[in-house]
Amino acid sequence: MSKSIKIIGISGSLREDSVNKKLLERAEDFLPENASFEYVDYKQVPVFNEDEENPLPEVVANFKEKVESADIVLFATPQYNGSFPGVLKNGIDWLTRPGGNNSISGKVAGIVGATPGNSGTIQAQLHLREVLSHLNVHVPPQPRVLVSSAGDLFDEHDNLVLPEAEVNRYEKLISKLIELV
Amino acid sequence: MSKSIKIIGISGSLREDSVNKKLLERAEDFLPENASFEYVDYKQVPVFNEDEENPLPEVVANFKEKVESADIVLFATPQYNGSFPGVLKNGIDWLTRPGGNNSISGKVAGIVGATPGNSGTIQAQLHLREVLSHLNVHVPPQPRVLVSSAGDLFDEHDNLVLPEAEVNRYEKLISKLIELV
Repeated sequence: MSKSIKIIGISGSLREDSVNKKLLERAEDFLPENASFEYVDYKQVPVFNEDEENPLPEVVANFKEKVESADIVLFATPQYNGSFPGVLKNGIDWLTRPGGNNSISGKVAGIVGATPGNSGTIQAQLHLREVLSHLNVHVPPQPRVLVSSAGDLFDEHDNLVLPEAEVNRYEKLISKLIELV
Repeated sequence: MSKSIKIIGISGSLREDSVNKKLLERAEDFLPENASFEYVDYKQVPVFNEDEENPLPEVVANFKEKVESADIVLFATPQYNGSFPGVLKNGIDWLTRPGGNNSISGKVAGIVGATPGNSGTIQAQLHLREVLSHLNVHVPPQPRVLVSSAGDLFDEHDNLVLPEAEVNRYEKLISKLIELV
């Protein structure tokens, strides 16, 4: 039997009905039997202040443990103001604190993103990719899952219906991530 | 008499003894008589969640008003994980909410940065510059104030003593920002 693989999903949008959360959930469609997926809620993680990292807030310690327990971290990000959300960068900043305690180093990560706009979140994804490379996280260069005009992609039951090309890319991305573990 | 100019300072580090806060304070050394400087504390601004922007939290509304009242916004940023802090991006994200209410559009801004490391915060500054350009903020390309090895720059009274070249660049930057208003 192949080894079991744990994938966690982190969204750059904290909104309850976030399209990026729905995009993360779609990863479950592509999982082999030995892989599991868990969505990680980090909305209680406070803004980072070095004066408040000792002791580490309990929500932060829990968030770090979730990431440490995973083989693969799947990020879904909207684009806010030409980059990925401050909320997500703030969560990642905590993952590297206190100094010398990088909870994400050496992991495999994938990036996908959806936006109501027309950029496909590419600028957000490129910034996030750069930060992750700084943290010694392995992010495959391809394929890229870029979902534009996301507001038009819901069916009458409020399900996210992705264009076929993105479904194919998403499936390939998940396979690639699993190969890299 | 020349028109009065209001400069506000925003730090990427929320730490009480932050070297970037001290770097902001040094701007006062270079001000002409018609200019004033105010440090803006935004540490109570929560992580952004679109579900919580209506009504706008009072701390956020106050932060937006401070920025709206300024002619020049001076940012001092450390570098966290290959970019500027999530905390600062989160503050900027709020400045553009709710949609259509960009509190910083059209302003003049300067970027300076200090780090105990050896990168001078250049990567953080370039990412911040890109985000600000996305928000229609005028950031002069030069001079760049990049302070490395900041931990070694304190005198016996815990004052930040900048290398002369950085002092000169900082003074020129402030002049340039005032010209652009």
